Amino acid sequence: MATKIFSPELISRFADIVGAANALTGTDDKAPYLREWRDRYTGKTPVVLRPQTTDEVSRILALAHDEGIGIVAQGGNTGLVGGQIPSPAGDQIVLSLTRMKKVRDVDAAGGTMIVEAGVTLAEAQHAAEGAGRLFPLSLASEGSATIGGVLATNAGGTAVLAYGNARNLALGLEAVLADGRVWNGLRRLKKDNTGYDLRDLLIGSEGTLGVITAASLKLFPIPAERETAIVALESPAAALKLFRIAEAEAGSALTAFELWAHQAQDFALRYMSNTRDAFADAHPWYVLIELSHGGRSSSALEQLLTIAHGQELIRDAALARSLGQAQDFWRLREAFSEAQKGAGGSIKHDISVPIARIPEFLSHAAEIVEQVAPGARPVPFGHFGDGNLHYNISQPEGGDKAQFLSLWETMSDAIFELVSELGGSISAEHGIGQMKREALRQHKSAIELDMMRAIKQALDPKGILNPGKVL
Amino acid sequence: MATKIFSPELISRFADIVGAANALTGTDDKAPYLREWRDRYTGKTPVVLRPQTTDEVSRILALAHDEGIGIVAQGGNTGLVGGQIPSPAGDQIVLSLTRMKKVRDVDAAGGTMIVEAGVTLAEAQHAAEGAGRLFPLSLASEGSATIGGVLATNAGGTAVLAYGNARNLALGLEAVLADGRVWNGLRRLKKDNTGYDLRDLLIGSEGTLGVITAASLKLFPIPAERETAIVALESPAAALKLFRIAEAEAGSALTAFELWAHQAQDFALRYMSNTRDAFADAHPWYVLIELSHGGRSSSALEQLLTIAHGQELIRDAALARSLGQAQDFWRLREAFSEAQKGAGGSIKHDISVPIARIPEFLSHAAEIVEQVAPGARPVPFGHFGDGNLHYNISQPEGGDKAQFLSLWETMSDAIFELVSELGGSISAEHGIGQMKREALRQHKSAIELDMMRAIKQALDPKGILNPGKVL
Repeated sequence: MATKIFSPELISRFADIVGAANALTGTDDKAPYLREWRDRYTGKTPVVLRPQTTDEVSRILALAHDEGIGIVAQGGNTGLVGGQIPSPAGDQIVLSLTRMKKVRDVDAAGGTMIVEAGVTLAEAQHAAEGAGRLFPLSLASEGSATIGGVLATNAGGTAVLAYGNARNLALGLEAVLADGRVWNGLRRLKKDNTGYDLRDLLIGSEGTLGVITAASLKLFPIPAERETAIVALESPAAALKLFRIAEAEAGSALTAFELWAHQAQDFALRYMSNTRDAFADAHPWYVLIELSHGGRSSSALEQLLTIAHGQELIRDAALARSLGQAQDFWRLREAFSEAQKGAGGSIKHDISVPIARIPEFLSHAAEIVEQVAPGARPVPFGHFGDGNLHYNISQPEGGDKAQFLSLWETMSDAIFELVSELGGSISAEHGIGQMKREALRQHKSAIELDMMRAIKQALDPKGILNPGKVL
Repeated sequence: MATKIFSPELISRFADIVGAANALTGTDDKAPYLREWRDRYTGKTPVVLRPQTTDEVSRILALAHDEGIGIVAQGGNTGLVGGQIPSPAGDQIVLSLTRMKKVRDVDAAGGTMIVEAGVTLAEAQHAAEGAGRLFPLSLASEGSATIGGVLATNAGGTAVLAYGNARNLALGLEAVLADGRVWNGLRRLKKDNTGYDLRDLLIGSEGTLGVITAASLKLFPIPAERETAIVALESPAAALKLFRIAEAEAGSALTAFELWAHQAQDFALRYMSNTRDAFADAHPWYVLIELSHGGRSSSALEQLLTIAHGQELIRDAALARSLGQAQDFWRLREAFSEAQKGAGGSIKHDISVPIARIPEFLSHAAEIVEQVAPGARPVPFGHFGDGNLHYNISQPEGGDKAQFLSLWETMSDAIFELVSELGGSISAEHGIGQMKREALRQHKSAIELDMMRAIKQALDPKGILNPGKVL
């Protein structure tokens, strides 16, 4: 797409659609929409548009399509790969969906609700709870992340093991296509085999195939009881054996199985207030296990830990004896990402491998880190039960931040090569955005990239939807 | 696509790829591939090709692409909407995948297996069982239906409530595209956010976007215990209340909730050997409930039935006291579709509506039947917990079969209109094929059909993949 010159007249035609108060053109007003929270991506834009209705989104896209203007849809701006940030050239318009905040309908009996794109994940959870139901998608940034954003990126989080990722929780979508037409696919059906799966095509396409404006979501019964424990372990191999026991004993009651290394916990305890150690002694690895039960009270978690103890898999275990203690456990788990800020610069990865290969991955990855950046500190943690690890690395203690960060590409190339060897994914839940666009070209087959390009061309022939992202 | 004239030379170029023994040209040899088992669709073809490898499929499609020949992929030929049957014009080649029978790999520890398209559903289940794992997809025709077929049609069945439909059970695909290129998407990952969801686009596309040659499938722990009961009920409204109790009490342990009317059971007991009534008396409606438990023994089913009994929801209940009795219950449930043959002609529907609207649907649908074909006998049964009913109708007792069947379009139009009013789907699990192509045009929005056409054009620009189906 040729770089567009924005005349004041064109800007005001866009502004007229949403009203002057919701067409931000001042530098300070625009700033929060132009910077990714980890400061890795900044962009420019002549105007940030903040529509409140699907009709406004439709008119914005129709105009952008006529004029050939790139549109970058943005939710809570919590994405980690720069997908929501416009190009630094200033030739794209930011479309912030955060004012589309209606909970259109909650059907508790039917187990569905329809919410608009700008509803935050926490707000969606509360709307479900208010109707006596569970919307299970949960992640650290849920106070800001929006439904539109988590669907556009197919977000994961801590409840994927039992309930699936964002894709699995959507029954239907409403989306505005590149030319401004509105697709009403807000179905509430568990089964519908009438044609191509457009819903799943748009989900995870990061705003490059359409702009999601609303979704019908699945609701679940609120578990009557949850059991939570942190278990201290010798190694990832012990975690794998424990996972097999948990799966076999708890079946579908197993709703979380999160792994972290001592280093992650150490940073959290050191740099984040409100976190506490579940144990008196330090241990090399930890797992948080959660079981959720429908009916009556259970001691399934204690029983499965007894089995694991009998097999000498466990160094120690702390069972939450109260809701407060369970919240402490989760608070610790959710602190890891932000805690790393206290330890200087960090290089981060969001990878997945087949679960059985996690121990192998962790051992080889540690060797790679030591080769590329001697003294750097791996901070692995993540969703073991999904095969998904955030393989983060903090700079060497007392070392130079900039110098460490200059190794990002070299480090990632080596980690991604290992991931590919193990049949894994270079982006398990964060998506491609700007960050992994080049890596995608290296790690996807030519034929798969061709299929993606053909679909992009079919649904967005002018290339106005989130240009420069994904493909 | 212009009608193609098949020269003997062209036929032999196709035949050379698979060898003469697997290129069927004789009328008797071809016959089983050209007729749908309910006799609603028959087609013609110059040759049925039976490749054994992905490479052979690739070469067949490359040649078909060069020559502009339509290719109709076929699995076990159990489809119910004519999707697997070529056109009567004889201008399309049938590509039978049933010789692609390799179980390439079973990774019990990793919970995945890779099987080829021609492996039957029953064979896939056995391969998983042999490794101590469960592949849960299950349907009446599982002895013939193939993995390629169930994925191409996103088949459902009796285990959808807990495990999802075919789409939810596939981690990755291998598929041959329209031009013969092979896409290797056989990933084994639970989470992978690297680009567009091509897997789910191909799944359910009924052979119109690519030919699935293999799949990596999810495996689950085999439940240690299953509890099964048939419950006799007054009405679908009572079934809905019972479903809510079962959901709340059993949570994710609820693995089946199947509803049927007395008429369905009556036909099964009358026309199918090996079926027996669970009760001494007749009841208007029945539900089969199954709970599956991971760990130790449970009496959750009895407990939830006690609750339902306390609310006077239940007329009677029979709990399976042995595996044999549970199998009896399921045998009865699976007999309904075939049993209808004994009762003369039948008009069949595979619809879904939001679960809460099932009672409303059943009551209005019965009125429609009586209006369109007085005396005809509704035989509703199906997957209540998924909102999916097979709303079948048998001809009036002693009436004229042909005359009744001549009402198919009128009947379906009226039923589909009701389904649309209730926010439902006109094809919940059987797909579109030939049968519902016209209905699809009436019930889908123009914009959704446009999106589908754009994608079809992008991935199969010459229109050689299953021409005349779906779109």
